[in-house]
Amino acid sequence: MNIAILGGTGKEGAGLALRWAQAGHSIIIGSRDAERARAKATELRDRAHKLPIVGHTNLEAAGLGEIIVVALPATGLAATLPELRAAVGTKVVVSTVVPLTFGGPRLFTPPAVGSSAEEVQALLPEARVVAAFHHIAAHELAETDHAIECDLLVCGGDAGAKEVVTTLGVSLGLRVIDVGALSNAGPVEGITALLATINRRNKLKNSGIKITGL
Amino acid sequence: MNIAILGGTGKEGAGLALRWAQAGHSIIIGSRDAERARAKATELRDRAHKLPIVGHTNLEAAGLGEIIVVALPATGLAATLPELRAAVGTKVVVSTVVPLTFGGPRLFTPPAVGSSAEEVQALLPEARVVAAFHHIAAHELAETDHAIECDLLVCGGDAGAKEVVTTLGVSLGLRVIDVGALSNAGPVEGITALLATINRRNKLKNSGIKITGL
Repeated sequence: MNIAILGGTGKEGAGLALRWAQAGHSIIIGSRDAERARAKATELRDRAHKLPIVGHTNLEAAGLGEIIVVALPATGLAATLPELRAAVGTKVVVSTVVPLTFGGPRLFTPPAVGSSAEEVQALLPEARVVAAFHHIAAHELAETDHAIECDLLVCGGDAGAKEVVTTLGVSLGLRVIDVGALSNAGPVEGITALLATINRRNKLKNSGIKITGL
Repeated sequence: MNIAILGGTGKEGAGLALRWAQAGHSIIIGSRDAERARAKATELRDRAHKLPIVGHTNLEAAGLGEIIVVALPATGLAATLPELRAAVGTKVVVSTVVPLTFGGPRLFTPPAVGSSAEEVQALLPEARVVAAFHHIAAHELAETDHAIECDLLVCGGDAGAKEVVTTLGVSLGLRVIDVGALSNAGPVEGITALLATINRRNKLKNSGIKITGL
């Protein structure tokens, strides 16, 4: 599939780009700055055997991608997404956004609407938003020599969109677990606060989660 | 140790009572209704070989227990805890409370303060509150013939209190993972919404979580 990653120059977005390209998908790295997007695409493309990764502005990427992955900072959604609304239309949109605030009294700081994924949905009302990939550590994605030890939790209101995201997860070798409607995205995003805490306390970079009993 | 379980007639509280009694702790089941507490204690005590479990009102239990476990419904905290404040004092208080609302638009419905554990702390300001045991399914606790397949996530502001709760977890055979301050209790409690969703979708009663990469 043809996947556009908005904010794809960040660690999480770039890690997903690399793994998906290795799995046979075509990737468009999106950034505010087309030059930075192209530079990151070149860097990733040359990591192995000429992977299919290109760079564009977020707006161009939103138009070119079949699937749109939002890997933007939580604080940048309201400034970035409204101008992409027409380009995104009814596409499947994957929100990997985690509303964390480091250095404050509280690490997990979701918006009033409950979660960053619900904010994405509010800003792109026609899109079919699915929340996923929050727990797959960028560090795990970047080290492509081993399998990723983490389940993929997926939630959203559109069953077809969840099917598509399930395919994306399976192509990375992940076990995919449907955790219901987009109203569960807050708890999904919140787990990242716990993993970030565990990483810091234990000097790790790649803690993850597995569901037991399934 | 001597553990009082407020709301111990419920499934989660009774399951913890049973497992802890089997591990050698003395248990006081608390309930609004002393008769119900005694009946549940009798039922649990007779399950194996005369386990050390008694029943009392929540107020009496709060005075008798060395450690106080709050296993009350999230909606009952404000009505129940204020009158226990003096009896609880500076004891270690374990909140297992999960703010879930079934049948509404959103399953995870934490209070404005961020989590049920932080509400417990606000209502019992002298207590040393730790959030824990939310993900250990009541069904797993009740079936005492096998080990519990779930990690124990623990958060709170008092290191000594977390040590005590770690001991309680280890006595149930659990791996205990410190996930930081009580301000992380919202994400910890939120996981229960995901496990409840997974259970419903997969006709299970005992899904749980494990942290990977540790």
